[in-house]
Amino acid sequence: MPHIDAWRLDPAAYPHSVAVQTRFQDVDMLGHINNVAFAALFETARVRFNHALGLTEWRGHRWLIAHVGIDYLAEAYHPADVEIATGVERIGNRSWHLAALAVQEGRAVATCRAVLVMEAKQDATGLPDDFRARLEQFRVGPAA
Amino acid sequence: MPHIDAWRLDPAAYPHSVAVQTRFQDVDMLGHINNVAFAALFETARVRFNHALGLTEWRGHRWLIAHVGIDYLAEAYHPADVEIATGVERIGNRSWHLAALAVQEGRAVATCRAVLVMEAKQDATGLPDDFRARLEQFRVGPAA
Amino acid sequence: MPHIDAWRLDPAAYPHSVAVQTRFQDVDMLGHINNVAFAALFETARVRFNHALGLTEWRGHRWLIAHVGIDYLAEAYHPADVEIATGVERIGNRSWHLAALAVQEGRAVATCRAVLVMEAKQDATGLPDDFRARLEQFRVGPAA
Amino acid sequence: MPHIDAWRLDPAAYPHSVAVQTRFQDVDMLGHINNVAFAALFETARVRFNHALGLTEWRGHRWLIAHVGIDYLAEAYHPADVEIATGVERIGNRSWHLAALAVQEGRAVATCRAVLVMEAKQDATGLPDDFRARLEQFRVGPAA
Repeated sequence: MPHIDAWRLDPAAYPHSVAVQTRFQDVDMLGHINNVAFAALFETARVRFNHALGLTEWRGHRWLIAHVGIDYLAEAYHPADVEIATGVERIGNRSWHLAALAVQEGRAVATCRAVLVMEAKQDATGLPDDFRARLEQFRVGPAA
Repeated sequence: MPHIDAWRLDPAAYPHSVAVQTRFQDVDMLGHINNVAFAALFETARVRFNHALGLTEWRGHRWLIAHVGIDYLAEAYHPADVEIATGVERIGNRSWHLAALAVQEGRAVATCRAVLVMEAKQDATGLPDDFRARLEQFRVGPAA
Repeated sequence: MPHIDAWRLDPAAYPHSVAVQTRFQDVDMLGHINNVAFAALFETARVRFNHALGLTEWRGHRWLIAHVGIDYLAEAYHPADVEIATGVERIGNRSWHLAALAVQEGRAVATCRAVLVMEAKQDATGLPDDFRARLEQFRVGPAA
Repeated sequence: MPHIDAWRLDPAAYPHSVAVQTRFQDVDMLGHINNVAFAALFETARVRFNHALGLTEWRGHRWLIAHVGIDYLAEAYHPADVEIATGVERIGNRSWHLAALAVQEGRAVATCRAVLVMEAKQDATGLPDDFRARLEQFRVGPAA
């Protein structure tokens, strides 16, 4: 098992949380939520987080997913919901990192790190200032 | 963009390769293969790799996915196939790492690292010797 | 457009209803909920319906899906939930038909008919009486 | 089991056929290809059929799926491919019906009927003549 920082496993450390339903289609032949299904669950939470963040207001800028990494900590099952907490872990020049935690019935079942990148434009070499300020408001991470 | 070791982007460095069909359902509203769909494509290749490796012969041992990390390098599209190359990157005491590369029409579009762990048993504190030997035969990585 | 019986479009006619979340992965390149995703949404509701019905109590009996037919009435979107109402439309000798209706933001967006069949056994040529009685309690259809 | 016309079960009756890979994600906790996964498999074949038909050449016309009905005839498994044959069963004023058959290792495992509808336009009350002629070339059905 990889080392996981303590704050990653604490739902209270995250600024945003959403209950995501599991589906029968998430379950594989082992009877648990499949690892690919977790990628879909985290995506569902990430889209809602992006909406809360107001990412859509920056639509003139195109952004892409550069990396998604998921640590599977415990088996999860259907039909219980998964509560997914999300926050901004790091802000770079043109990219930002999201950290997320999935909890089912009180157990941390998986964590996720996603790296998003805004495409370079002639007139914008970095993230817009107002977008950067918005990201700062949704920080997650170790207490300062 | 993260730094990617050169060997990861070289299909010839991998001991196993399979053409995986893309599906209309892999495409999201941006018109490209969705990042979650890539997790499914890599899983499809991984299952075939496990079969080639003979993982099923060790069925008395239960193993789980502990980590999956994907780097998205370029956009991929439907309906062209994706060629996915896979190999064993690292062998631990009870775990092993798989590295994989997805290429579409000559372009490297994503790389994947998966960590698999065999469950501990009373009588087995590490990977069985014959299984470990088998993993060694499917190595991928920088030339020694 | 096919003719749809009026009762199929009336959520109040159904004995069971559940709100099902839509996911980003349900959306295809046309920007709406994909027709295959609807099959997954209806399955999600059907599994919950089967649970409400107590189908799992008859586990000694194996049942299969013999038919699923979906009529697409209007486009549906993410991220709004879809409310899915389900009921038993018909009870046969070894099979039963479920009717379901999906409503999003007040609009009927799709209906579904699923036919389930219990496998024949030496000692059971039809549905168990108590199961049949249970199905009767979850009827949907035109007022008698 | 519903009555299935004999021609529906004869791959040779169809004008188009494609091998579709199954994926691990298609398998549900019962160990067989899930019924929703079949909807995705048929969609994959339908998209390739539409391409063979040249449907994309009529892009000025928007069309939608109005109905999909699948009959499940036998269990199917991973990792064998499924061969899916598709043809035009019926041509209406603004709609057309596709019939499809899925065969795995020589066994018919499912049939599908899909109804597609072209949206009405001020200047076009029916299918364009050249499109209708093209549909006629891809007919499937009982021998005349």
